[in-house]
Amino acid sequence: MYSVADLKTVYLDYMRANPFTKEPKGLFEPVDYIMQLGGKRLRPILVLMAYNLFEEEVSPALPIAQAIEIFHNFSLVHDDIMDEAPLRRGQPTVHHKYDNNTGILSGDVMLIYAYQYLLKIKEKDLLPDIIQEFTDVAEAVCVGQQYDMNFETDEMVTIPAYLSMIEHKTALLLVGALKMGAILAKTSPENIHHLGEFGRNVGIAFQLQDDILDTFGDPEKFGKRVGGDIVQNKKTFLVLKTQEVADDIDKKRLKDLMASYPADEEQKISEVRTLFQKNNIQKLADSVKETYQNKAMWHLDKVAVDPQRKNELKTLAAVLLKRNT
Amino acid sequence: MYSVADLKTVYLDYMRANPFTKEPKGLFEPVDYIMQLGGKRLRPILVLMAYNLFEEEVSPALPIAQAIEIFHNFSLVHDDIMDEAPLRRGQPTVHHKYDNNTGILSGDVMLIYAYQYLLKIKEKDLLPDIIQEFTDVAEAVCVGQQYDMNFETDEMVTIPAYLSMIEHKTALLLVGALKMGAILAKTSPENIHHLGEFGRNVGIAFQLQDDILDTFGDPEKFGKRVGGDIVQNKKTFLVLKTQEVADDIDKKRLKDLMASYPADEEQKISEVRTLFQKNNIQKLADSVKETYQNKAMWHLDKVAVDPQRKNELKTLAAVLLKRNT
Repeated sequence: MYSVADLKTVYLDYMRANPFTKEPKGLFEPVDYIMQLGGKRLRPILVLMAYNLFEEEVSPALPIAQAIEIFHNFSLVHDDIMDEAPLRRGQPTVHHKYDNNTGILSGDVMLIYAYQYLLKIKEKDLLPDIIQEFTDVAEAVCVGQQYDMNFETDEMVTIPAYLSMIEHKTALLLVGALKMGAILAKTSPENIHHLGEFGRNVGIAFQLQDDILDTFGDPEKFGKRVGGDIVQNKKTFLVLKTQEVADDIDKKRLKDLMASYPADEEQKISEVRTLFQKNNIQKLADSVKETYQNKAMWHLDKVAVDPQRKNELKTLAAVLLKRNT
Repeated sequence: MYSVADLKTVYLDYMRANPFTKEPKGLFEPVDYIMQLGGKRLRPILVLMAYNLFEEEVSPALPIAQAIEIFHNFSLVHDDIMDEAPLRRGQPTVHHKYDNNTGILSGDVMLIYAYQYLLKIKEKDLLPDIIQEFTDVAEAVCVGQQYDMNFETDEMVTIPAYLSMIEHKTALLLVGALKMGAILAKTSPENIHHLGEFGRNVGIAFQLQDDILDTFGDPEKFGKRVGGDIVQNKKTFLVLKTQEVADDIDKKRLKDLMASYPADEEQKISEVRTLFQKNNIQKLADSVKETYQNKAMWHLDKVAVDPQRKNELKTLAAVLLKRNT
């Protein structure tokens, strides 16, 4: 069995052995750029971990790992155009380094390349199931992005709608990664199901934690600017929960603050954070996050394989969901 | 056997029975809009025609026909953003009717939906070959679009480079349509090959004819503005051929004209047309087009099936490539 660190190395070796150096350069160089930009490589590692639960040698799963990572980066390239984001992992986004048209077209070819990699797996009889799983997830990620864009202008966003958005936009790609690895390993439908549910619940818990850390995180440990969601008036779980539980005066004040773009951003962050604290929102959010985390672990327990083999996935989930506040 | 007109009806009935009415509306309504906008439906008809060469009942090929038409419309949606085109088939383009972000995301989900339709075919053992063919063609269309964008700024475009661009951007999707229909019909590799080559040569001939008609077409019969390519300074086959065969004075004059945006566009169109006529360019272009047309027919003849069954494809090619000047 491989450790998480081992699998990251195995994946990165494969990725670097398969660079996008094809012609025309204008199309493929931006693909290479975004793929090399780094990141945790969580999704390809999950593909390999799911496969490695059942099989010792992970190399047959590498094309799927690569497909998932290419798809994830495709979604970042197009989302960054839509969000007009200048930076990604501290470096210029593709459309900022090149231009919007390059971002659109190089993104398109990445989505197509995800399928090219899926087609490389040796077990051709598994392709229909694997491509169906991938295509369903890809569609869901687009739906999630649309929900997210709708929220910007929606007056009223409910908490179930918010949870559905993060499930589509973030969690389902983790589901797909784990299920595709498990399908390739030819394990039982029950195991495939439970691994998928593990991924779904980890994904939602992870996004809730991201919402919490964005406001309450340690600036030294949180990769992004603490308070960034507040500055951008994002309807996070913390905001929506406050709108649910606070009194009318606090609700009104939060609504006004979260529609404002004041010069003094730190003052706004501080006032919103105080409203959250007064309403005990961090604890409420933590408890919802923990519910998803517990569900994730329940499903992982149900996967019928030597419990020792599940330790790496348990450790990974614990690291991802560790409170860093 | 079905006629071309029959197959268009069969396809349109299927398309209309499968509208994009899913939620969220912001994502799928634009897909329905562009799919309903009309057009010749040439590509889905080619899928059905290739299948119908070997099989009487075409309904098994309808999901592939739909996949090809969705992909074609996806490429139009994204290309129209890149080209900043306000109109498509006389109606507002998707990004013009909605906005750029909608065009990007709805386009993405269309590319994914093309795969959803491929996955609907009943013969799952054929899926790897069909999805591989589709994915190769999809990649090639992106490459063609990149070549086309490069040409806008390239100082020197050769005729082989131009022919490669139109092959990628236009012809290969016809190749894919025909080959996928033939693969589904489980005909021989030779038949699949010759049908593909028929499509490639028809596609290139069709694009060359489009270049000719854009300058020399009958304004009554040509769907677009005659002279539009000249106004937009497009490096068409006519321009590139003139740069190859004309004397230095004509070359210099054409180069200057094709870098200008004069107020009097009709005067510019007229002068460029005169330069083409002086250098016998229409006839040269026609002869190249005919070479491809002849090659197409040669490959169609090689398809091992009752010659009578090939009459519809022959008629379709003749109609597509009929001189309308």
